Amino acid sequence: MQEALEILLEISKPMLRSEHIPVKEALGRVLSESVASTVNLPNFNRAAMDGFVVKSGDTRGASPINPVHLRFGQDCIKVRTGMAVAGDYDAVVMLEDATIRGDQLEVTATVHPFRNLSRIGEDVAAGDIIMNEGHRLRPPDIALLAALGITEVSVYSKPKIAIIPTGGELVAIGSRELEAGEAYEINGLMAELYIKKWGGLPLKHGIVPDDPQLIRQAIESEHDADMIVLIGGTSVGEKDYAPRILADLGDLLVHGVRIQPGKPTAFGKVNDRIVICLPGYPVAAFSDLYLFVRPALKKMAHLDDSAPKVNAVLSRKVVSRPGYISVVRVKIEGKAAVPLMTSGAGILSSLAKADGFVMVPEELEGIEAGEAVEVTLIE
Amino acid sequence: MQEALEILLEISKPMLRSEHIPVKEALGRVLSESVASTVNLPNFNRAAMDGFVVKSGDTRGASPINPVHLRFGQDCIKVRTGMAVAGDYDAVVMLEDATIRGDQLEVTATVHPFRNLSRIGEDVAAGDIIMNEGHRLRPPDIALLAALGITEVSVYSKPKIAIIPTGGELVAIGSRELEAGEAYEINGLMAELYIKKWGGLPLKHGIVPDDPQLIRQAIESEHDADMIVLIGGTSVGEKDYAPRILADLGDLLVHGVRIQPGKPTAFGKVNDRIVICLPGYPVAAFSDLYLFVRPALKKMAHLDDSAPKVNAVLSRKVVSRPGYISVVRVKIEGKAAVPLMTSGAGILSSLAKADGFVMVPEELEGIEAGEAVEVTLIE
Repeated sequence: MQEALEILLEISKPMLRSEHIPVKEALGRVLSESVASTVNLPNFNRAAMDGFVVKSGDTRGASPINPVHLRFGQDCIKVRTGMAVAGDYDAVVMLEDATIRGDQLEVTATVHPFRNLSRIGEDVAAGDIIMNEGHRLRPPDIALLAALGITEVSVYSKPKIAIIPTGGELVAIGSRELEAGEAYEINGLMAELYIKKWGGLPLKHGIVPDDPQLIRQAIESEHDADMIVLIGGTSVGEKDYAPRILADLGDLLVHGVRIQPGKPTAFGKVNDRIVICLPGYPVAAFSDLYLFVRPALKKMAHLDDSAPKVNAVLSRKVVSRPGYISVVRVKIEGKAAVPLMTSGAGILSSLAKADGFVMVPEELEGIEAGEAVEVTLIE
Repeated sequence: MQEALEILLEISKPMLRSEHIPVKEALGRVLSESVASTVNLPNFNRAAMDGFVVKSGDTRGASPINPVHLRFGQDCIKVRTGMAVAGDYDAVVMLEDATIRGDQLEVTATVHPFRNLSRIGEDVAAGDIIMNEGHRLRPPDIALLAALGITEVSVYSKPKIAIIPTGGELVAIGSRELEAGEAYEINGLMAELYIKKWGGLPLKHGIVPDDPQLIRQAIESEHDADMIVLIGGTSVGEKDYAPRILADLGDLLVHGVRIQPGKPTAFGKVNDRIVICLPGYPVAAFSDLYLFVRPALKKMAHLDDSAPKVNAVLSRKVVSRPGYISVVRVKIEGKAAVPLMTSGAGILSSLAKADGFVMVPEELEGIEAGEAVEVTLIE
């Protein structure tokens, strides 16, 4: 499993394409260029307190027993927080340190230069690099860009991931009632939702019957994709043509990974494009989406691939097959991770019941009740 | 701070309104009704292996030294994984346990009823409650609903949160160049992005000048909102009219919270609607968005409010004001949380540099270097 993942990450290259988009729509996107500010923030000296702007030198020595007197309009001006402080004025005397006496201000405190003043460029100076290439934009980052008058940014394009569901028994969701032997095509929908969530741009292909020639054509038709996710029908078994097609069209790099559920995974390269083949059983498809598609996609998208995790204590022993990494679905109850009994790769409802999953390492035959485990939360 | 939050959570009521939406668009939404399945999944007995469907009774006693012979079309049929198994057939003999001999199948293993077969309703039985009210829909949940032929679900409506930015110095983002004393209105944008991210529906109001009468009108005009976030201009200070308006129009419940930065927060109720007043300084507005708006909104939206956190070791001592909760911005470097030097509430660039923040409890005067801290990651 680890080896297969390393091969996959080796061929998953961070995107080079980038695009110019409005800052307001750039939430979650990754900068493809560092951003420098062309302006100062603030772009003026700004009062940081309500009070009176003064020339600090004029207040030298001022104290309650030795007040100085300043003339309004010439030596001092009333200001509110946030207002611009212009000319020779370089400090703000707070309200409590001053008393208005007719057309004069009695100041009872000495203020030093730039006291109670936000200096021009204090937050960001013109020319400063404010964010580096590779930075993922969060709301305060977008606020800062907007504050600097920046309305567009260059971000890496999202990896385009084609999703090709295959299987003669599959029926498009909601298109009609099912007959015996048929099933709705739901793995493609699950892949589509996850790929979007993980920072990719899903390109959903129509359902392709179990025909090697048609599958081959479908793969070759996805010129635009940066990666292709080919999902087997539920009837892979004997036919298992997907890996053969990969070997024919390009390079089959991995076939069969020691994960349960998730074993029939295969991946390779066709026309310099990664193709990942997922099994048709939904729980196995889910495991492989998480364990392979997610890290590959995150790497391509210049995103950190750490998944949300919590620590818990296993409430009940789980048994696993040595030599295989087992993906055990669990419910979180307080500090406990409660394994769900169902182990079948076809039991989709077990995923809906699970809060997350625990991975049992391949060298173990299981994990005892009471042991500490790390649970990857299902996003 | 804790007390203020409790008052706020007390008046933040989970939404009662709900709406019917297509399952495919329901990612992240919360079910307002439990969902039962009207069908079985699978809705037929399904072969779980490639092989031959048989009536299990016919194979009784079969073994390599005592094979039984079955007639094709009458006693057995070839199947692939996923195919429907009809009639009296109730088990699948695997390929390796059978040999074709002309029009007969030689079976060398005994199979029990339902061996290698996914039984009808094995995943979900008709009538089963598959998801409860309050469940937040993730991709595998949506896949399960779709698999059951469910195309629409009832979910709680998103709380509508009006955002009213106030301040005479504010200029709409990108509308024109700034003059001295002006600033782009960015707190409202930050609030809008976070409210969307946290599960609310932001309703952005235009900029309102520092005029109590106009602010009053703006608050009263937001009939549709479930909550109102009023953001002070950078010039709150002396005027500080927002809390007075709340007291006039309805109930002022909290005024001033012991958080640094973030102190000038106030909130209350006007026409049975929560109004939260945020300070105009962007870092203070950020703190209050995280510490007050987030938990209130999550509660209203029926969502869990746990924020993503990591454990780290403080790399350098931080000093804080006793009696105040301090929000210290930090960078994460390996296992270390490195405090950013800037403490100013106006220094927006300090947020862009931060990966997260540490909250110093009010009873402390700071945290020593080397101590373990919990860092809330900035989403």
